[in-house]
Amino acid sequence: MSARKKKGEEAAGSIRRAPRKLEGLDRKTLTLIESTAERVRTKIDARSLPELRFPARALSNVKYDSKVGYFELGRGQKARALTVNTVKSFAQTLRLMAISKEMVENNDFATKREAYYVSKNWGDCKFNEQVESDTVMDDIEALASLDGLSREQLRYYPEEHGGSVAGSLVVVDTDAETGKPIEIDCTGFGSGSYSIPHSVEHLGFKTEAKFILAIETGGMFQRLNNHKYWKSANCILVETAGVPTRATRRFIRRLADEKKIPVYAFVDCDPYGIANIYRTLKVGSGNAAHINRFFCVPQAQYLGVTPQDIHDFKLQDATHKLLEVDVKRAKDALKNDPFFAAHKPWVKAIEQMLSMGVRAEQQALAKWGLNFVIEEYLPRKLKNVKGFLP
Amino acid sequence: MSARKKKGEEAAGSIRRAPRKLEGLDRKTLTLIESTAERVRTKIDARSLPELRFPARALSNVKYDSKVGYFELGRGQKARALTVNTVKSFAQTLRLMAISKEMVENNDFATKREAYYVSKNWGDCKFNEQVESDTVMDDIEALASLDGLSREQLRYYPEEHGGSVAGSLVVVDTDAETGKPIEIDCTGFGSGSYSIPHSVEHLGFKTEAKFILAIETGGMFQRLNNHKYWKSANCILVETAGVPTRATRRFIRRLADEKKIPVYAFVDCDPYGIANIYRTLKVGSGNAAHINRFFCVPQAQYLGVTPQDIHDFKLQDATHKLLEVDVKRAKDALKNDPFFAAHKPWVKAIEQMLSMGVRAEQQALAKWGLNFVIEEYLPRKLKNVKGFLP
Repeated sequence: MSARKKKGEEAAGSIRRAPRKLEGLDRKTLTLIESTAERVRTKIDARSLPELRFPARALSNVKYDSKVGYFELGRGQKARALTVNTVKSFAQTLRLMAISKEMVENNDFATKREAYYVSKNWGDCKFNEQVESDTVMDDIEALASLDGLSREQLRYYPEEHGGSVAGSLVVVDTDAETGKPIEIDCTGFGSGSYSIPHSVEHLGFKTEAKFILAIETGGMFQRLNNHKYWKSANCILVETAGVPTRATRRFIRRLADEKKIPVYAFVDCDPYGIANIYRTLKVGSGNAAHINRFFCVPQAQYLGVTPQDIHDFKLQDATHKLLEVDVKRAKDALKNDPFFAAHKPWVKAIEQMLSMGVRAEQQALAKWGLNFVIEEYLPRKLKNVKGFLP
Repeated sequence: MSARKKKGEEAAGSIRRAPRKLEGLDRKTLTLIESTAERVRTKIDARSLPELRFPARALSNVKYDSKVGYFELGRGQKARALTVNTVKSFAQTLRLMAISKEMVENNDFATKREAYYVSKNWGDCKFNEQVESDTVMDDIEALASLDGLSREQLRYYPEEHGGSVAGSLVVVDTDAETGKPIEIDCTGFGSGSYSIPHSVEHLGFKTEAKFILAIETGGMFQRLNNHKYWKSANCILVETAGVPTRATRRFIRRLADEKKIPVYAFVDCDPYGIANIYRTLKVGSGNAAHINRFFCVPQAQYLGVTPQDIHDFKLQDATHKLLEVDVKRAKDALKNDPFFAAHKPWVKAIEQMLSMGVRAEQQALAKWGLNFVIEEYLPRKLKNVKGFLP
C-alpha cells in the first residue's frame, strides 16, 4: 500500500487549501528555521562540526521581576554539537524543524503526538518514545521563544482545545479553503457556546465588552450563560474548566491585550483555585519559563470567591474543612511562591483561609438561591473592582 | 444581608425570561411531580403514613435483551415509608421534587452540586454531604425514567458540558429571553467549534449529513475539522474527548434518532477505546441501568481503529505493547461483558488484539503522513461500512 497520493489523483477527502502569502509571524518562523539550517550547512561545507544552541530550560536559568509579571528565561544556553553520541538527536531536531517549515508553507499543523508518529517513517532516526520527541520539541520551542515565537507558530499544536466562550464578542477566524474571514458571534449560541480552537494565533476580535470573566467551573459558566449574564453585564464569559489549557490562556491574553479590557477570575475559594488555577492564569508556571511570556495573563485580577466573601456573604455553613493537602498547598504558596510573596494582600488572604480552616466553592452561593450569584454577588463585587486581590 | 430581592427591585444582572407554555415533556414532568405529591398528601389527609416507591437501582434488577440493545431496569422496587428513621430523607426527596417543579415553571435548572448547596438553607433538613443529595436524586431519576423522563427534564443538569461539534449541521436552540428559535450553523466556526450544552433535550436539528463521526481524541477532531473533512465527506464531527459525557451521548442519540443517520465511532484500538469509550457510547453502563435508555446510542458502529487495521495499514511499528491493565480489561470484556459476548465479531477482534499483544492509537496513522487519515484511511474504511464491527 502506498501512502503517497499518485500525481494528479484528487484526494478523496481533502479540501483545496487557500493559497497564502507568507507574512508576519509565519515569515518570521520560516526565517528562524532557515537561518538555523543555514548555519548548520555552512559549518558542514567548511568541514567543521555543526552545533545547535538552545536556551537552558531549568529553574536555575529563570529570573523573576514583579514588574514584568512572569518568570523569564535567562541567558543560560546549552549546546548540542554534532558528535557520534548526539548524531541521532541532532538529526531529529533538524527533521522536526523541517516539518515545521513544511507545515507553515502548507498552512497545516501537527499535535506533539502526531509528530512522534510521523517519525516512525524516518528509519533509524525515528523516536522510540514520545518523551524523546517532546524533549527535542521543548528545545526548539525554547529557541523560538527567544524570537517571540511560540510552539503554535511552529505549527505544533497542543492535543487539548481551549475552554468555552459566550458573550459580547465576535471572533474573526479565517476560512482555510477560501482564505476569507469568518465572523463568529459569541452571543448567538443559545445554551451552547464557542469552543476555543487548539491554536488561537490567527484569530482576530471585535468587542465592546467591559471585561472578561474567567470562570472555573462548567456549572457556573452554564448558569451565567443560560441567564445571559454577559448581556446585562456587557462582558465575555470564558470557562476554564479547572486549570486553563494553553489555548484558553493564550486566547484570554491575546483578547485582553488587543482590546485592552480587564480580566477577572471567578474561581473556588481554596488553595487549588488560588495557587493553581489563578496563579497559572496570571503569571504562568515555574517549570515552563520559556513559554510564560505567551501564556500568562498578567492583567488578570481575582474577583472571588475570597476568604472574606465567606464572612460577607454568610457562607460559613456551605463550606468544607480544609484537607491536609489543602493546608500543605497553602503553606507552600506562602513559603515558596514568589508571586504570593510579592503581594501582601495575598499573604493576608491565604493566612485568613488557613486560620478559618475552611474552603468554599463558587457554587456555594446557591445557598441563597440559584441566581443569587447573578442578582447579588457579582454586582456587589463589581462595584469595588479596586478591592480585587492582585 | 438579605438574599431575597426586594419587591419591585430590578435585579442587577438577570434577564427577563420568556414566558412559556408548559407542554410536552415539561407538562409530563410536572404531572409526575404533582401526582407523586398528591398521593403523599392524600395519605396524610387520611391520617395514614405516606410512602414513596422507587425502582431498585441494582444489577440484580437489570435485564439485557440484545434486541433492545441496552441494559433495562426490571420491576424491582424499594419503598421509602415515612417513619422516624426516614423522615429526613423523605422530606429531602419531596423538597428536591418541589425545586424541580419550580425550575420547570421558571425555565431554570441546577447542577447536582447547586442542589446540594440550596439545601443549606433548609435548616434541619439540609444535606450534610453531596453524596446524600446525589443518592436521593438518583432515586428520583430512576422514578422519572419509568415515565420516559430523564434527570435533565427534572432540570437537574450535569456539571460537565458535551464535546465539540463541527460540520454539516444546524442546531436549533431557543433564546431564553425572547423564546424565539436560534439557528446555530456548525459549518461556521472556522478552526473552532460548537460546544454542546449541558442539557440537549430542548435542541432541534437540521441536516442533510450522511453520518455522524464520533471521534475519541481532540487532536484527530482538530485535524478533520481544520481540513473541513465534514465538507468533503458530508458528515458531522463530534469530539468525545475520551468517554463521552452524558450530554455528548444524548446529543448524538437525539440527533441520530431524529434524522435517522448512522453513527460511526473512530477511537483508539485499545481495550479502553473499545470496552470503555465505544461500549459506553453504544449500550451504556451496567451500574446506571435506569438512564441507559436515554444515553446510549444503539445505532453506533465501530469504524476503527481495529486490530485488523494494524495489519491492513502497516502500523506495526507505530504500536505500543499492551500493558497488564490492558490485557486485564480485554479479558474482562470477553468474560463478563454481555455486549461483547453477544457479538462474535467482537470476540474475534479482541482475541486478535490479545494475540498480537499491541495497541494502536488513531493518530498512529500519521506515520504515513499527517493527512493520510483524510486522504486514504477514512475513504477506504467508508467504502465497506458493512465490514464495521457491531
